[in-house]
Amino acid sequence: MRAVDIIRRKRHGAELDRQEIAFLISGYTEGTIPDYQIAAFLMAVTLVGMTEQETLGVTEEMLHSGSVLDLSDLSGEKIDKHSTGGVGDKTSLIIAPLAAAGGVIVPMISGRGLAHSGGTLDKLESIPGFNVGLSLTRFREVLAEAGCALIGPTKEIAPADRKLYALRDVTGTVESVPLIVGSILSKKLAEGITGLVLDIKVGSGAFMKDINSATELGGLLASIAHRMGTRSVAVVSDMNQPLGKHVGNSLEVKESIAVLRGEGPEDLRELCLLLTAYMLVFARVASDVDDGKTKAANLIASGAGLEKFTEIVRLQDGDASVIDDPGKLATAAHRKEVRNPRAGYVGRIDTESLGVAAMLLGAGRETVDGIIDAAVGLVVDSKIGDRLSEGDPLVTIHYNDDRRLEEVERLLAGAYHIQDEPPAPVPLVHRVLDPTKET
Amino acid sequence: MRAVDIIRRKRHGAELDRQEIAFLISGYTEGTIPDYQIAAFLMAVTLVGMTEQETLGVTEEMLHSGSVLDLSDLSGEKIDKHSTGGVGDKTSLIIAPLAAAGGVIVPMISGRGLAHSGGTLDKLESIPGFNVGLSLTRFREVLAEAGCALIGPTKEIAPADRKLYALRDVTGTVESVPLIVGSILSKKLAEGITGLVLDIKVGSGAFMKDINSATELGGLLASIAHRMGTRSVAVVSDMNQPLGKHVGNSLEVKESIAVLRGEGPEDLRELCLLLTAYMLVFARVASDVDDGKTKAANLIASGAGLEKFTEIVRLQDGDASVIDDPGKLATAAHRKEVRNPRAGYVGRIDTESLGVAAMLLGAGRETVDGIIDAAVGLVVDSKIGDRLSEGDPLVTIHYNDDRRLEEVERLLAGAYHIQDEPPAPVPLVHRVLDPTKET
Repeated sequence: MRAVDIIRRKRHGAELDRQEIAFLISGYTEGTIPDYQIAAFLMAVTLVGMTEQETLGVTEEMLHSGSVLDLSDLSGEKIDKHSTGGVGDKTSLIIAPLAAAGGVIVPMISGRGLAHSGGTLDKLESIPGFNVGLSLTRFREVLAEAGCALIGPTKEIAPADRKLYALRDVTGTVESVPLIVGSILSKKLAEGITGLVLDIKVGSGAFMKDINSATELGGLLASIAHRMGTRSVAVVSDMNQPLGKHVGNSLEVKESIAVLRGEGPEDLRELCLLLTAYMLVFARVASDVDDGKTKAANLIASGAGLEKFTEIVRLQDGDASVIDDPGKLATAAHRKEVRNPRAGYVGRIDTESLGVAAMLLGAGRETVDGIIDAAVGLVVDSKIGDRLSEGDPLVTIHYNDDRRLEEVERLLAGAYHIQDEPPAPVPLVHRVLDPTKET
Repeated sequence: MRAVDIIRRKRHGAELDRQEIAFLISGYTEGTIPDYQIAAFLMAVTLVGMTEQETLGVTEEMLHSGSVLDLSDLSGEKIDKHSTGGVGDKTSLIIAPLAAAGGVIVPMISGRGLAHSGGTLDKLESIPGFNVGLSLTRFREVLAEAGCALIGPTKEIAPADRKLYALRDVTGTVESVPLIVGSILSKKLAEGITGLVLDIKVGSGAFMKDINSATELGGLLASIAHRMGTRSVAVVSDMNQPLGKHVGNSLEVKESIAVLRGEGPEDLRELCLLLTAYMLVFARVASDVDDGKTKAANLIASGAGLEKFTEIVRLQDGDASVIDDPGKLATAAHRKEVRNPRAGYVGRIDTESLGVAAMLLGAGRETVDGIIDAAVGLVVDSKIGDRLSEGDPLVTIHYNDDRRLEEVERLLAGAYHIQDEPPAPVPLVHRVLDPTKET
């Protein structure tokens, strides 16, 4: 078998068989196939596509390029949630303790933020002392004790994805749906989970800008996970505006704590209840989604979710006193409001611009080795449909360094589109894709 | 400017501007852009295509990646011929001396054979002592004295093509028409020529199997050369059977000498007269193609072509006595005929199989570092349309080593398709594409 012949077959639109896929992925991971051949292959896949059967093969080969956790010694269902990422998306910090408080085992391995999109690890690290670099041994211990642990990628998990993702990033092949599916599922299914709730973001602040691509990606992710024996559902949720009001690391931790206290913005709370509900259903703790939402709301009302979050923070070496007193979290030295230029309704928000603005303030990274300022970020004062007078605040900038402040103000002012008529309401959830049901 | 952004633009079907093309090609040649990014780019070009303007840019940037010969000190037009290659295609050995005898300067830089296709350099080297590795200084001296010199690639000429071709070969991107055009023309136009006659082979023994792809390639080659200031024409000629009767290095030299003597097979002679005629027209030695063919025929009849070939062989350190006595060229120890299994007409010949058979005997290379046996090859006894009795010879194998003889016999027997009805006649020349005329 020669790599060049497989590349040519894909170029001509053929469906590759499992041996060919295994040959390329194991050869690349082990270093026997050079990166230039895989680069050509990735571009062919991006332009020609892959069948669902090929995508399944890619995902399984990437998964088995490294260790797959065996959590069978822990009783109960192991369920995780994955989001494709957006601006102000802090649901992991709320859902993981809620589901664990409900009896679900949540072995969550997350990533860092890049470009306009934040990362769960960066948010957690804004809690003083919080350790996302637990050894796999300690990860299991925390899981056994609290039912939930939150860590970053490890060398043992899906090494094929680490190499492939780095290559996709520099060869213009990030946007291929089969490759995205392989990348996401190979890491998530390596957690040894029995169920996976997928939150597919769609809109101006998401990777997927239109509902059709989001539905394609979500449907394929859920279908491949299901075929690999993991109960799965994909919720296509709106990212045409930030989720909740806070964008930035310690700002988002504060808002997450608020939701766990029964406070916080309604859209964030609603989405968290829905995603948690599916986790409870998959774990057979809830009988259906409505029952799951009720149970999730009860876990907030009783304080069990907040207590679980406190326990996790403590077990992962974090300063749990910030949960009772979020004012102890890093706070920016300065604030400045961006004001509405004319009376009218917020019609549209270029949400990616808000994410870029937060990044420029220091809340995110322009390059993988960028340094994060936990304190800075945005508070979104006005959202789509709000009726505003001239001079009302659109968004409040929390900053420490004013070097890029003007650029940030310009970006934010340009991101809000004010109109005379009220816009059509934006649904929070566009679709739910369940691979066990006909759509 | 970043390579990844240019790759993405090409992937999305955009037309790249000249700065982007220059950035990629010079960056790759100089080693500042890694091979994996260029591999992804080559695959995107292969699948998405390039406009004629982009192809022109690629060709010019590849050309100027190295030296372009300045032959302006030699008076007269400098004209070369390029063939896309086939089985038994030895026209360079006949045309170069004929055109030079007619007053044209022919600075011919050729390649070696690979896979089923022979190479001019390997054929020339079957003449004892013939040196295809002249320095550029000596190349100019021979050109000045004889009006023709025949050498191999040099490091100074089109280094971008050397790197790009090696990468295309291992990434399944050899068959891209714009990349083929850049590769061929960057090397040929570096010879400092004022005119180029292109022989585009089409059929079962050629790289291009169908007339449409051959016409696309020939038309684009001629058009780009013309736009770069080089008079050009593309002859689309038939390669559904070997050209002439001899396949193999010294066998092809013998047949070339025969044509220059006024003997040899009619198809080979006819194509050589036509291609030489265009060279004479471009050099303003002939008024039109018919006049050019007459003059080329006269150069054979007078012995001037053979005399010029003798002069070139002598100036390039070859043993010119083989021209008077071709029996002195390497001859295989054994012969074996493959015989016709049943009475009928030769309807079709899988010509690539004949090329592969010659390669297996040792006449060509399976890999770039393979060793050639100058003596071995095939003599094609029967061609398309021939009426044969059972047991008539189809092809005679000239071999030294019988290890792969059975495989060769099987290949050859399978390559001939005998039918009851006479086939439609095969034209020698399918089309002539002249970029200065509307087609």
